[in-house]
Amino acid sequence: MSVKNAFYAQSGGVTSVINASACGVIETAKQHSDKIGKVFAGRNGIIGALREELIDTSLEDAESITALKHTPSGAFGSCRYKLKNLEENKREYERLIEVFRAHDIGYFFYNGGGDSQDTAYKVSQLSEKMGYPITCIGVPKTVDNDLPFTDCCPGFGSVAKYVAISTREAALDIASMCESSTKVFILEVMGRHAGWIAAAGGLAGADHNEAPHIILFPEVPFDREKFLARVDHCVKEFGYCVIVASEGAQYEDGRFVADAGAKDAFGHTQLGGVAPTLANMVRQALGYKYHWAVADYLQRSARHIASATDVAQAYAMGKAAVEFAVSGKNAVMPIIVRDQASPYVWSVGEAPLSQVANQEKKMPIHYISDDGFSITAECREYLSPLIQGEDYPPYDDNGMPKYVKLNNTLVEKKLRNEFDI
Amino acid sequence: MSVKNAFYAQSGGVTSVINASACGVIETAKQHSDKIGKVFAGRNGIIGALREELIDTSLEDAESITALKHTPSGAFGSCRYKLKNLEENKREYERLIEVFRAHDIGYFFYNGGGDSQDTAYKVSQLSEKMGYPITCIGVPKTVDNDLPFTDCCPGFGSVAKYVAISTREAALDIASMCESSTKVFILEVMGRHAGWIAAAGGLAGADHNEAPHIILFPEVPFDREKFLARVDHCVKEFGYCVIVASEGAQYEDGRFVADAGAKDAFGHTQLGGVAPTLANMVRQALGYKYHWAVADYLQRSARHIASATDVAQAYAMGKAAVEFAVSGKNAVMPIIVRDQASPYVWSVGEAPLSQVANQEKKMPIHYISDDGFSITAECREYLSPLIQGEDYPPYDDNGMPKYVKLNNTLVEKKLRNEFDI
Repeated sequence: MSVKNAFYAQSGGVTSVINASACGVIETAKQHSDKIGKVFAGRNGIIGALREELIDTSLEDAESITALKHTPSGAFGSCRYKLKNLEENKREYERLIEVFRAHDIGYFFYNGGGDSQDTAYKVSQLSEKMGYPITCIGVPKTVDNDLPFTDCCPGFGSVAKYVAISTREAALDIASMCESSTKVFILEVMGRHAGWIAAAGGLAGADHNEAPHIILFPEVPFDREKFLARVDHCVKEFGYCVIVASEGAQYEDGRFVADAGAKDAFGHTQLGGVAPTLANMVRQALGYKYHWAVADYLQRSARHIASATDVAQAYAMGKAAVEFAVSGKNAVMPIIVRDQASPYVWSVGEAPLSQVANQEKKMPIHYISDDGFSITAECREYLSPLIQGEDYPPYDDNGMPKYVKLNNTLVEKKLRNEFDI
Repeated sequence: MSVKNAFYAQSGGVTSVINASACGVIETAKQHSDKIGKVFAGRNGIIGALREELIDTSLEDAESITALKHTPSGAFGSCRYKLKNLEENKREYERLIEVFRAHDIGYFFYNGGGDSQDTAYKVSQLSEKMGYPITCIGVPKTVDNDLPFTDCCPGFGSVAKYVAISTREAALDIASMCESSTKVFILEVMGRHAGWIAAAGGLAGADHNEAPHIILFPEVPFDREKFLARVDHCVKEFGYCVIVASEGAQYEDGRFVADAGAKDAFGHTQLGGVAPTLANMVRQALGYKYHWAVADYLQRSARHIASATDVAQAYAMGKAAVEFAVSGKNAVMPIIVRDQASPYVWSVGEAPLSQVANQEKKMPIHYISDDGFSITAECREYLSPLIQGEDYPPYDDNGMPKYVKLNNTLVEKKLRNEFDI
């Protein structure tokens, strides 16, 4: 087998550990120079391939590549861009082949969530349908934790840790103030369709008598009266009430509790504002003093408090992707396998892209308590290992984390034509 | 001098390091058993004194007291309760004397911000005006950084570190997504009347060409057109725009950009919501895709990323308060003195409570750039040392910080009468 270059791209919403996967890909590819030449990273994901904007990662020094392991977000740029089906937009696939051929690319590593693995799967069909031989491996990533097959998704563990710790810290704040001040606190967290991240807030307390007293999951239809009754009960019983609310919390009829109205590139409703909406309900119905926070991007970029387990898994997925590729595998995605629950032992497995694409893993309903407001012991057992360990970035003398900024030097273009996307 | 017990209370909004000051008070008092007997902590601040709800800190083991140093929020409960003037509500002062006398209290340590130092000053007048001898020492604390005399206020450095790091992390997120997704990000931070916390966001970038591209200070009248023009410029110039907005951002006429309408116990307007308000402006005027976060209590309770400098200063203030008291000082507050800017060297000084009370330290106007959107080099030089060093709490095997929960055993009441507050 001749030496071919590799294309690596980051896709979809970034995480605090997606660069650790990039690090795993690049460092491992270097160890297989008999098969993989250079690793070109797409500038802004797949868009970089379409535009022939390829970053030559071999021009970065080894220390910078290693520093990716502790640097959050997408060092090469990510994108929200979904390839259409081959039949619908053949032009895009022809362009990809044109670029891949021009740069002698034989490996395609695509680092993303469900939508992105769909793209990876489509690219993997290039060999068969359009006669361009390419080894295509997905690298899992998503804070939403909704990819199938894998025990968890790199990126999720760190968000979970951030949300669990932030909830506990804020809860201590309210507990100390509630006698004469704030009695209700609401933290809004991500999770459009699944309550994984909201569930992680549950790790802040030992049971439903400790904060958070209420978790609002997208899986449980929001019932205003039941919610307000529980808030009132908690304030009377515990002196205060801490709520972790998923942005995806919705009514029985599917209306989001807070619907901003906008939609993203994939047609998903863009959310935000469930916390102030709930705060308003509390104010009007109960009159308690409240505060609310919206973690938004802070939660998925909080590399400063990343889970060591998550960082290790993110790196391992990048590494495994390359090892799969050089060992002749194709159209697969490495996954995390839970070999043992406690103490947590995991290993690397694999799943076919054809089955990963566009399949959303829902949170099991038995992870949610009967009253719909907290997590079960089984959920706790699942989540707990994912936030284990701390993996702090190095800091400079001024107290700021030393996150690396790559040079991101583009490879000289070989094609004459531009491509409009 | 005979041995007298001490009363310690936490007051006002809590911080991630106020318990470090408590630790400093309690541990140092133990070293002066020739003068100080037990340290009684007020349950929920001064309210605990009025209700005769005194926590006997001598019943906690030494490890738990030491663990206060890494535990955020107010371990004994805090309060928003301001004593009226002696002339207006003599009954409260008589009650304090009654409780102090019943429990042989001769030292009063009050840990709080401007309003609280006002209370401390009033209590210090008890000796003179009502004939009850008491040594009264203030312990500075406030995330608002607005106490006079002291170089900075314990609690602020850690919020500053949290905001600087969170801003940088979120900025990396936007930078990697802006090509095809979010272009404008707004982080709302605390600071009702002064822009200290918003200014700390400026440490995330090297200058105004790096994120945050816009800081909105309460000190600079908000100009909608100028703001939107700058947002548009940044998106066109850098591809994205990161904004750190103080909750206290206001128009020329004093109206808050987002005024929730509610007021707290001190009559301060309760704020929240400047981020969504700004996001709405951006959407309507420019149409850019946006995201926004509201840090709220997360920022002031984030002990997981506390500034080591801040923790050390918080402890030192508690320690100095006791040392002042046993050396015969009265009606003073220890302060932090900046002996050298770089490398940062600080020491402990003192200020009279009579001059500290109700005086708000404004941010110097030369700390804000001419265009009103960023911080100056002088501001950076002031802020930078305050976030230096990391002081991580210990973690348990499940990946959660080991924050201590005290027993908080109440001393048996000696008075027959209850006191309604």
